[in-house]
Amino acid sequence: MARLTGRMVIGSERVAGTGTAIRAVDPRTGARLDPEYRYGGEAEVERACALAEEAFDAYRATPPERRAAFLETVAVKLDDLTDALVARATAETGLPEPRLTGEVARTTGQLRLFAADLRAAGDGTGPVDPAGDAGPEIRQGRVALGPVTVFGASNFPLAFSVAGGDTASALAAGCPVIVKAHDAHPGTCELVGRAVSGAVREAGLPEGVFSMLYGDGPTLGIALVTDPRVQAVGFTGSRAAGLAIAKAAANRPRPIPVYAEMSSVNPVFLLPEALAEGGGELADAFAGSVTLGAGQFCTSPGLVFAVRGPALDAFLDAAAKAIAGDPGAPMLTPGIARAYAEGVGRLERHPEVEILARGREPDAAVGGAAALAAVDAEHFGPGLQEEIFGACSLVVRCADLDQVRELARGLEGQLTVTIHAAAGDREAADRLLPVLERLAGRIVWDGWPTGVRVGHAMVHGGPFPATSDSRTTSVGSLAIERFRRPIAYQGARR
Amino acid sequence: MARLTGRMVIGSERVAGTGTAIRAVDPRTGARLDPEYRYGGEAEVERACALAEEAFDAYRATPPERRAAFLETVAVKLDDLTDALVARATAETGLPEPRLTGEVARTTGQLRLFAADLRAAGDGTGPVDPAGDAGPEIRQGRVALGPVTVFGASNFPLAFSVAGGDTASALAAGCPVIVKAHDAHPGTCELVGRAVSGAVREAGLPEGVFSMLYGDGPTLGIALVTDPRVQAVGFTGSRAAGLAIAKAAANRPRPIPVYAEMSSVNPVFLLPEALAEGGGELADAFAGSVTLGAGQFCTSPGLVFAVRGPALDAFLDAAAKAIAGDPGAPMLTPGIARAYAEGVGRLERHPEVEILARGREPDAAVGGAAALAAVDAEHFGPGLQEEIFGACSLVVRCADLDQVRELARGLEGQLTVTIHAAAGDREAADRLLPVLERLAGRIVWDGWPTGVRVGHAMVHGGPFPATSDSRTTSVGSLAIERFRRPIAYQGARR
Repeated sequence: MARLTGRMVIGSERVAGTGTAIRAVDPRTGARLDPEYRYGGEAEVERACALAEEAFDAYRATPPERRAAFLETVAVKLDDLTDALVARATAETGLPEPRLTGEVARTTGQLRLFAADLRAAGDGTGPVDPAGDAGPEIRQGRVALGPVTVFGASNFPLAFSVAGGDTASALAAGCPVIVKAHDAHPGTCELVGRAVSGAVREAGLPEGVFSMLYGDGPTLGIALVTDPRVQAVGFTGSRAAGLAIAKAAANRPRPIPVYAEMSSVNPVFLLPEALAEGGGELADAFAGSVTLGAGQFCTSPGLVFAVRGPALDAFLDAAAKAIAGDPGAPMLTPGIARAYAEGVGRLERHPEVEILARGREPDAAVGGAAALAAVDAEHFGPGLQEEIFGACSLVVRCADLDQVRELARGLEGQLTVTIHAAAGDREAADRLLPVLERLAGRIVWDGWPTGVRVGHAMVHGGPFPATSDSRTTSVGSLAIERFRRPIAYQGARR
Repeated sequence: MARLTGRMVIGSERVAGTGTAIRAVDPRTGARLDPEYRYGGEAEVERACALAEEAFDAYRATPPERRAAFLETVAVKLDDLTDALVARATAETGLPEPRLTGEVARTTGQLRLFAADLRAAGDGTGPVDPAGDAGPEIRQGRVALGPVTVFGASNFPLAFSVAGGDTASALAAGCPVIVKAHDAHPGTCELVGRAVSGAVREAGLPEGVFSMLYGDGPTLGIALVTDPRVQAVGFTGSRAAGLAIAKAAANRPRPIPVYAEMSSVNPVFLLPEALAEGGGELADAFAGSVTLGAGQFCTSPGLVFAVRGPALDAFLDAAAKAIAGDPGAPMLTPGIARAYAEGVGRLERHPEVEILARGREPDAAVGGAAALAAVDAEHFGPGLQEEIFGACSLVVRCADLDQVRELARGLEGQLTVTIHAAAGDREAADRLLPVLERLAGRIVWDGWPTGVRVGHAMVHGGPFPATSDSRTTSVGSLAIERFRRPIAYQGARR
C-alpha cells in the first residue's frame, strides 16, 4: 500500500495539522488505524482559500478539452491506485472489496463521463440572438461560479468523497475545489487527495485548483462555507449537518448556493396486481435492496406502502424470512451503528409498530441487525417517516388505494420513489404518479432504488429535505451545471 | 377606458378587499386616481393558494402546446387592451405613452416567445440513457415546481408586473401564479389581471391557474411566500424587500427558491482609446442612457470608471452639458422621488464628490432633476456604490488601468457591466474582462446597458445583490427553467 503520511493537501504542499488528532476505526475489528490525522485550523483554511481564489481565473479560462484531459489524468491515477484504495477503504469502512473495487470504477467512470461531456459540449454555451431590429447580438455563455467547498460522505468513500461527483463536476465546470475530508476514512482521502493534487501538477494547472483539509465540521467545515472566496458548496451527509451548512451559507453577507443531499426514505409503492404477481421473488428482491451494503445508501428503501390483504401478507412473510436470514455486515462507523440501533429501538418501542423480522448480528465490532417492521396506516405519522440509516424498512398497511395516495401526499421530499405496477394496476398508477412526481427526483418503475446509474440522464436529487436544492442532481452530467451560471455578451467586441 | 372595479382576481371571482384602502397617484399632477383598491388579508391568501394548489396537477399536465395557446390568448387580450392599458398606466406612472405602448408590445412579445419555446421544445425533457449493462433505461424529464408567487415591479407596469416575465415564465413552466399587485399601478394591474383570468377561462383551464391580490408587502406579501402550497417566488424591486422575501423563504420548514432581482449600479468602463475616439457622441449616448425613463431602470448606468486625462475631461464636459440640458421627467412614485433626492443629497454632501451637472426639474408633481457627479478613485468606497434609483451617475476618475481593475474587483454583483474598448484597448480589455465576468450577468460591448432585449440568449440576472440567485435570468427563454426541476424516470412502465 502507498505509505500514508497523515498530512493534508494544500495546493502543492503536504501539511501536517496541529489540531485534534483522529484515527480511522476498522468497523470489522474495532481497531484504530494508523496513521494519526490532525485537524487543520484557520491558517489552513486561509491558505487553501487564498490558493483557490488565486487559481480560479486561470483555471476557468482553460479550454474545456484541457480540463477534460486533467479529469482523465485523475481517473488514470485512481485506477492505478485501485488495490491500495480498496485495501485502505476496506479497513476504514468495512465495506466488501468487490463493492469498493466497483466504487473505484464508478468514480473514475464519472470523471471520464464529465471529461467526455466537456469534449462534446464545451462549457455549455447557450443560444445566440443575432443583431437586428430587436437590438445588438446577444450570445449566451457560462461562467464558473468560483472556488467550491466539498464535504465528502461517509458511505461512499470514493464515489461521494474526495474525487466524487461533487468534486468532479465542480472541476469540470472550471471551479477550484477545497475538500473537507471525512473523518471516517481519512487514509482513503489522503490517497485520493494526493492523486488529484498530482494530476493538477502534471496538467500544469495552478496548484490552488485542489486542496483537501482534515477538520472539525462545525468550525473548519463552516469556515470553508463562510469564507468570502468560496462561491458554492457540495455536501452529502446528514440532515442536521446539511441544514447547518445551508444556514451558514444563507447568512453570509453574499449568500451562495448549497447543494446538500441530506435524507430520504425512498418510499416504495406496491400496487395490488404487481404485489399479487410478484410473489416471493418480489419479496426477495426487496429484502436484497434493503440489506445491500447494510442499508447504508441514501437510496435505501425505508418505507413501503401497500393495500392490506393476502398478497401483502404473503409478501411480508417472504420478506420477513429473507430479512431474518440476512447475515448482517459491518456498519461504517460507531456513530452510524449507534444511530441505527436507536432508530430501530424507536420502532421497537412504538406501541403500534410490529417488528416482523430481525436479521442476524454481523460478525463485526461495529454493526447492527437488519430489521423489517410494519404498521397500519391509521398509525402512520410524521415520526415514522424519519430516515433510519441502515438496513431497516417499515411497511405501511393501507385500507385501499385512496389511503395509499393520501399518505403519499403527506410525505416529505425524497431522492426516489418506486412503483411496482402490473398491467392491471394502470389506472391506480395513473392516479398515483402525479403525487409521486411532486415527491421525488427519480421515479423507479418495477425496480429498486439502490444503484444510481452514472449517466447523462440521471437525477440524484429531489425536493427538500432530500436535498437543499431540488433543481439539480449530484450524479450525472447535469451535476456540472450546478457550478456555473449563465452570462450574456451583448454586441461585437472591436 | 375599460371600467375599473377596484377588485382583486381570485380564480374566476372578482373580490373586493376589506383592508387598507389605496389609490394610485398621477405623478404628473399629484392627483389621486379612482377607484379605490382595498387590501386583501388572510382569507384571500388562503383562497388563492387553495385554488392554485387545486389547479396545479391538472395545469402542469396540460400539453405544452395548450399552454402555448393560453399564453398567446393572454397576449392577444393585452394587445387588444393596448389603448386602455397605456392610458391608465400613463396616469399611474407618468411614463410617456410611446414607452408604454412599447412596453405592451414587449410584454405580449415575451408571452409569444415563451409560447414559441413551448411549441419548439415542449417541457424541456432531457437526455435518455438506454437500458444496457449499466442498468435500466433512465429518461430525464422536467416537473413544474408548484404554485408561484410573483411580486410586480413599480418601474415596468406591464413587462415586469402582472403578466410580465415572472408570470409568463411560471405559467409556461406549468405553474399556477398568484400575483401581489404593485400599489403604484393598481388600475393597470386590474386590467391585466382580468385579461389573464379571462384567458384562463377561455382556455378551459382550472380557475386557480391565476389570481391577483392587492395587499401590504410585509403581511400579505410574506404570507404568499410562506404559505406551504407556494413553491417558488419571483420578485423585482428593492434590495430591502427582496432580502426580506428571501429570508422568509429560507426560514420556511421547507425552503423554496426565490428569484429576486434587487439592485444594480451597472458599472461602465471607458477604456482610454475608446474614450479618446468617442468624443462628444459617447458622452451624449451615455447621458441618454442615464436619463432614459428618468433613470428608473434596473440597468441604468450609475457608475463609470475611466482613467484621468484630457479625454476624460472632455467626456465629462460634454456629459455635463447633456445632463444639464435634460428636461427631466416625472418619477414613478413619491417614495421613489424622495429616495432619489436623498441619494443625490448624499452625493452633494459628500466632501470628496463633485456635482458636475444637474438637469432641470421636471414639470411634474413628482420628479427629480438628473445628476452627474465625479469622484477621484482614492475616495471611492462602499457607500458610493449603492444604487441611487433615478437619473444619476457617478464617474470615478482613476490614476491608471490597474486602479480601474482594482476598483472593479471590489464591486458588488451587478446585472450588467459595460466596456467601451477600441482596437488599441485590446490588452487592457483582455485583462479587465475576467474581473467583469465575475461581476455581472451581462457584458455589454460598446453599447449601453439600458434596453434589455427579450430573446433566447438574454441573461437578466447576476451575482448577489443584483439578484438572490445568479444561476438564472428573469428575461428571455431561460427564465422558464426557474420554475421546473429535473426528474429521472427509471425503467419501462408496464
